Amino acid sequence: MKGIFNSAYMGSRDAAEPGASILLGCPLDATSCFRAGTRFAPESIRKASWTLETYSPYLKADLDEIAFHDAGSLELRQGDLSFSLEAIEAAVAEIGQNNSKPLLLGGEHLITYPALKALKGRFEGIQIVHFDAHCDLRDEYEGQRLSHATVMKRVSDLGGSKVFSIGIRSGTRQEFEEVLLVGSPQLLAARLAREKPIYVTFDMDVLDPSCAPGVTTPEPGGLSFNEVMEYFSVLKGRDIIGADIVELSPDYDTTLVSSISAAKIAREMLMLLHRSQ
Amino acid sequence: MKGIFNSAYMGSRDAAEPGASILLGCPLDATSCFRAGTRFAPESIRKASWTLETYSPYLKADLDEIAFHDAGSLELRQGDLSFSLEAIEAAVAEIGQNNSKPLLLGGEHLITYPALKALKGRFEGIQIVHFDAHCDLRDEYEGQRLSHATVMKRVSDLGGSKVFSIGIRSGTRQEFEEVLLVGSPQLLAARLAREKPIYVTFDMDVLDPSCAPGVTTPEPGGLSFNEVMEYFSVLKGRDIIGADIVELSPDYDTTLVSSISAAKIAREMLMLLHRSQ
Amino acid sequence: MKGIFNSAYMGSRDAAEPGASILLGCPLDATSCFRAGTRFAPESIRKASWTLETYSPYLKADLDEIAFHDAGSLELRQGDLSFSLEAIEAAVAEIGQNNSKPLLLGGEHLITYPALKALKGRFEGIQIVHFDAHCDLRDEYEGQRLSHATVMKRVSDLGGSKVFSIGIRSGTRQEFEEVLLVGSPQLLAARLAREKPIYVTFDMDVLDPSCAPGVTTPEPGGLSFNEVMEYFSVLKGRDIIGADIVELSPDYDTTLVSSISAAKIAREMLMLLHRSQ
Amino acid sequence: MKGIFNSAYMGSRDAAEPGASILLGCPLDATSCFRAGTRFAPESIRKASWTLETYSPYLKADLDEIAFHDAGSLELRQGDLSFSLEAIEAAVAEIGQNNSKPLLLGGEHLITYPALKALKGRFEGIQIVHFDAHCDLRDEYEGQRLSHATVMKRVSDLGGSKVFSIGIRSGTRQEFEEVLLVGSPQLLAARLAREKPIYVTFDMDVLDPSCAPGVTTPEPGGLSFNEVMEYFSVLKGRDIIGADIVELSPDYDTTLVSSISAAKIAREMLMLLHRSQ
Amino acid sequence: MKGIFNSAYMGSRDAAEPGASILLGCPLDATSCFRAGTRFAPESIRKASWTLETYSPYLKADLDEIAFHDAGSLELRQGDLSFSLEAIEAAVAEIGQNNSKPLLLGGEHLITYPALKALKGRFEGIQIVHFDAHCDLRDEYEGQRLSHATVMKRVSDLGGSKVFSIGIRSGTRQEFEEVLLVGSPQLLAARLAREKPIYVTFDMDVLDPSCAPGVTTPEPGGLSFNEVMEYFSVLKGRDIIGADIVELSPDYDTTLVSSISAAKIAREMLMLLHRSQ
Amino acid sequence: MKGIFNSAYMGSRDAAEPGASILLGCPLDATSCFRAGTRFAPESIRKASWTLETYSPYLKADLDEIAFHDAGSLELRQGDLSFSLEAIEAAVAEIGQNNSKPLLLGGEHLITYPALKALKGRFEGIQIVHFDAHCDLRDEYEGQRLSHATVMKRVSDLGGSKVFSIGIRSGTRQEFEEVLLVGSPQLLAARLAREKPIYVTFDMDVLDPSCAPGVTTPEPGGLSFNEVMEYFSVLKGRDIIGADIVELSPDYDTTLVSSISAAKIAREMLMLLHRSQ
Repeated sequence: MKGIFNSAYMGSRDAAEPGASILLGCPLDATSCFRAGTRFAPESIRKASWTLETYSPYLKADLDEIAFHDAGSLELRQGDLSFSLEAIEAAVAEIGQNNSKPLLLGGEHLITYPALKALKGRFEGIQIVHFDAHCDLRDEYEGQRLSHATVMKRVSDLGGSKVFSIGIRSGTRQEFEEVLLVGSPQLLAARLAREKPIYVTFDMDVLDPSCAPGVTTPEPGGLSFNEVMEYFSVLKGRDIIGADIVELSPDYDTTLVSSISAAKIAREMLMLLHRSQ
Repeated sequence: MKGIFNSAYMGSRDAAEPGASILLGCPLDATSCFRAGTRFAPESIRKASWTLETYSPYLKADLDEIAFHDAGSLELRQGDLSFSLEAIEAAVAEIGQNNSKPLLLGGEHLITYPALKALKGRFEGIQIVHFDAHCDLRDEYEGQRLSHATVMKRVSDLGGSKVFSIGIRSGTRQEFEEVLLVGSPQLLAARLAREKPIYVTFDMDVLDPSCAPGVTTPEPGGLSFNEVMEYFSVLKGRDIIGADIVELSPDYDTTLVSSISAAKIAREMLMLLHRSQ
Repeated sequence: MKGIFNSAYMGSRDAAEPGASILLGCPLDATSCFRAGTRFAPESIRKASWTLETYSPYLKADLDEIAFHDAGSLELRQGDLSFSLEAIEAAVAEIGQNNSKPLLLGGEHLITYPALKALKGRFEGIQIVHFDAHCDLRDEYEGQRLSHATVMKRVSDLGGSKVFSIGIRSGTRQEFEEVLLVGSPQLLAARLAREKPIYVTFDMDVLDPSCAPGVTTPEPGGLSFNEVMEYFSVLKGRDIIGADIVELSPDYDTTLVSSISAAKIAREMLMLLHRSQ
Repeated sequence: MKGIFNSAYMGSRDAAEPGASILLGCPLDATSCFRAGTRFAPESIRKASWTLETYSPYLKADLDEIAFHDAGSLELRQGDLSFSLEAIEAAVAEIGQNNSKPLLLGGEHLITYPALKALKGRFEGIQIVHFDAHCDLRDEYEGQRLSHATVMKRVSDLGGSKVFSIGIRSGTRQEFEEVLLVGSPQLLAARLAREKPIYVTFDMDVLDPSCAPGVTTPEPGGLSFNEVMEYFSVLKGRDIIGADIVELSPDYDTTLVSSISAAKIAREMLMLLHRSQ
Repeated sequence: MKGIFNSAYMGSRDAAEPGASILLGCPLDATSCFRAGTRFAPESIRKASWTLETYSPYLKADLDEIAFHDAGSLELRQGDLSFSLEAIEAAVAEIGQNNSKPLLLGGEHLITYPALKALKGRFEGIQIVHFDAHCDLRDEYEGQRLSHATVMKRVSDLGGSKVFSIGIRSGTRQEFEEVLLVGSPQLLAARLAREKPIYVTFDMDVLDPSCAPGVTTPEPGGLSFNEVMEYFSVLKGRDIIGADIVELSPDYDTTLVSSISAAKIAREMLMLLHRSQ
Repeated sequence: MKGIFNSAYMGSRDAAEPGASILLGCPLDATSCFRAGTRFAPESIRKASWTLETYSPYLKADLDEIAFHDAGSLELRQGDLSFSLEAIEAAVAEIGQNNSKPLLLGGEHLITYPALKALKGRFEGIQIVHFDAHCDLRDEYEGQRLSHATVMKRVSDLGGSKVFSIGIRSGTRQEFEEVLLVGSPQLLAARLAREKPIYVTFDMDVLDPSCAPGVTTPEPGGLSFNEVMEYFSVLKGRDIIGADIVELSPDYDTTLVSSISAAKIAREMLMLLHRSQ
């Protein structure tokens, strides 16, 4: 008798081959101020992936031909933020030791911070391609320095990296003065340095709420799915060293469409990570 | 005392006049692999139609001036696929004997197959305008040759027709090699032969999931409602011999918007069927 | 101990300073024919406003620098239409006596009628910028002359004003002959007289149902949020004397996204009202 | 080709035979103060009826052996209360002229008032069995004398009838002083006069919200479905002259369970009306 | 790095030890006439199990001390009923060869038929304890002999077993004449033969819809969860040879409560299967 | 013009009179392991309160005759647990200095801990009446000592109080050995010492999930609303010094019924607090 569990992301290899990308759930759900529930995102993305084909007509690649392993999700501690952040940093470091690249499924946006702390040791001059509706550049939010609303500030505090932001449409006047907005795929192509490594952080709320209502902080006026695909085509063939998808909150995704969009973005990211090898 | 039942599609004539189009529910709900519920679609489209006006500013026509009859829905047998397919084929044949044209409300996409089997006897060189997110060109799916995922393959097996596909964004590499994609209304206009009959099959998932989340297999990156209207304007005045709307699953349509979109598409189709007389 | 109530719209001043705009809930919910629930809209817009920033990157203004006061909602009488309409007219008149401008949160569209009755006494040649999916130009609807479906007819019966309609895609043939459609921001800019006062009435169903499913009568094929922002940029710096947002029905807004969109439109309207002083 | 419409209540005869009970929708939805939507109830009860069997193990009767006709729903005017109330009164009078008995599907509770106005002319000493969570005995509510919250007061103003209330758990101190509460099926059996006619008005909120969340004003602490059946067994074989089911609001019935309960209660009522002939 | 997958039922051992109970998903979803979606039940029960404790205060046992293995779910073929039924029969037979006992998670009720076909070869005089709202004793339903509505008829056609039905409240007059209703835990205790094997089939709709709205055919007037526990206490220490939980339809379970109830019943069943060894 | 805000709990006095009870929102939402969202509970309870009458037929009291003040909600810091717990403790202490009694609206169950820390200084021998589905007696949970799952352990660590638990049906074997279960209102009446002060902590999950699905951890088999009222009747006239209502998670309360139940329990609690003066 051979039963099945569809728990892993579609097409995942059973074991982590050397150099294969590693998909890892990071269900951190601690600092969201409006709605919570990002802890359920990795599981929901995995389930939704099974409605998709392995072949991508955008990148003309097939997931069946790409080695990647879904390593499950980290066991984090609700309410013990430093434990959780350290666990994520350690996991990303460990992935790097195996010469693999991480695709992190959040969880809230704050997971990008420990991910980049871990990657910073191995790479220089990381270019961060930042899809988001919000600047996330506050220095402090509700009295906290580590928060989904400060994450890009903390990341830039790490130094040595450059952030290119796409889709931003919410922030304070000061944040809008600081943020480096990239308004088109053409501009992104022009600004990204060919020789430098790239990390992609994808906050699901960059999509218009019509496409992805199931996020913690929906903000009207966002990108369509196809516009995202156009930005992704710029990333094809470049040196992508890691990526994340954050802020999906499945319990507010009454039709599963936000999760399916996240799953489809994950499929494309796995192909981009592979292409860049 | 005169009570009302709003069960028929808005504006339906009480009886089937000769030559009038016939709207017929085909609640087949048998082979869907991800989500079911298409059996409830005809009823939901009828209910939603009552939120619309009879006048179309797109086609500048009024349903009140068009003879059509809503004949209700076929009684199919859940789990007896061949009985159901034969019932649909017989019904479409009967509609043709009355010199009428069918507008079928699915049910799943497989209903297109018996519909075209019935029409093939009466028309030659049918051009099929195929709105869909998925190729549906597999030869077999989960061990079955008759399935929502193989329907366009079975249709092309019938021979003698040509399929023009619009909105496709999911399939295997092989399906994408086989499919004839039409990427714009202009291209559709150029490719459709004026003198040949046209059948329109409209899988609701061709729409972006933001516009129609209530389908069995939502696929991000689809058409907007207005883009569909632009393709429809190409069909105006041509020889449309029949049409269907499939894969709506109302129980996943938490806001009724998918059903309203389907009802509006049905209104336009009734006008297109009439225009072509 | 200092508790908080987030009941007022984000950033509202505690008292109504002279000349400050007044945000006022008008939960009229009486004549809708398909779905009801607009009575809950003011409360839902207020709650949703707290997910937004006070700064607008569209108008480059900050709500914190603008004096406005959320005066709460009128207590209307379910089922006593004339009482309710008179209460709204009186309230708008009172706002004018304080040299303030009203931003009304409906409620159904019919509230625009008493609002303009009150404003008509103080202003001449009002230009009405009318965002809507429906013409609302019937003379009578279901035997009633005062209805959400006749409101723009009643408004034009008042005389002395001119209506510019944006986003209309539903109506009778006769309504489409009467309506003055403005098809682009450029056309709006060309047609609006500089020296005359402007009232903006915003029926939420002008937005595509993908962006705002939670309305009483969703109509596919509408504007995106960003298209609305482009029309708003035309209104910048003009003499806006009042505005309303109507037909939001929060109980059909399963993801809160319609309410968030309404709240964001309210933020921009408050800035437009202020800019025009 | 024989299509089907499942629009009528399960088992309805095609025409109204003399003496057969008449099921009539009265979608009045005008005075509710908290939530609306009762206008959709008749349609939802009809749809839900198709999940039930025609046989009742409670009353050991079969609907297939009982002559009744579903006459559809009255066309009422949203916002024109007196028109609507008169239409209901006229319809109930007309049913009586045919020697038939009415089963009214509301709409809001106020429909009981015109129903009893119509019945009062034909019957003396009507005993009203009143299932409800609320007393509905206010003399005025929000400035209105005709309201869902005053309906039993208006009914008792008609004179000549006696009200036995079951399941009441909400009201003012004064209402609780006035109301005649019947606390058990045994007490109901003891108090009902054998020789006098009975009208049953069933406000769905008498059921506990766990059983019927889809009502306009849910009130915790109500009856279970089986407790209702025990009260109904007391009514078996008595002279029931009419009945209604009110205050179901299907759009708040996220699982269809409230509608199914209403449909099952309607089935039992049709049997009780028949038994009493 | 050690990731986690919570895909198996809480407390499942990693491998199937000899004699350990086997939990097996049977996502058959083919013949339901009203609502579908039972195919998603095994996954939803597994997810919901993680909200429970391993200890049961009802049976005073702890799942951590019981050897059982969650073997995943069978891969069935949507639309190929005989393939699916044979796959289930074969799997249950294979479990028996390992001296293990099956706990099947449906899927629709029809899975009980192949399960008992497989068990019939190994056990004589099986007593079937049948929790259900519906008799399921029709000989044919919508032209089909194999259906969720005929399953108990087919089971009794197998011969050699006796069915004790609990919670039945819906059926035809003839079905109620045939069914052997057991109205209390005391009666069940009196009627079950001590020395004979027992199979428990649990249709989730035996629970009142207030407790389990997420089923294919909700029927008001059912058992509470605690009443089920009282029946289960009768089964303690008896020779239970297998069990199933069927007809859960998670997409209609808007609050996850139906799935949690099913998961808790599964926990108790695993303990009952173990106790009987 | 007099607008209204319905933001405070129904019947709240505008200011805090000396000795009046204080209703205070404590939206702590930090340590829940399954579902979050308790931060929205105070607002949802306030909104739901407006569907209720001020008169209670259970306690035969009227809220209009009871002095209490809704002080709004504390501004807590998501992710800074010690700040939040200290803020709650300080607020409860401040309420005591005004000779008032607190009714706290959570937020998660952990808020009971700082509340009792603050009360412990002023009262001796506090008897805690603990309504809950879960024991909450773990010493540590997921590595944390301060958690919703350890709160009653922490409370008993404070010393000097006695906990009487009602409705418990989930826990570890060890927790069930430690917990003092009170199985009936009669037993509660017998065990509570007349002369000692009482604090009532009410975890909404003590109710059956059919009555209150909108909680963080639903557990089948709970109390009905009327059973709770029977326990409350035991508390009438006793020395109640404070109370809380916790673990309501409104976003999972798809029908508002859980919030209405919580609001009705709050009404009764305000009366119990008042009665005990």
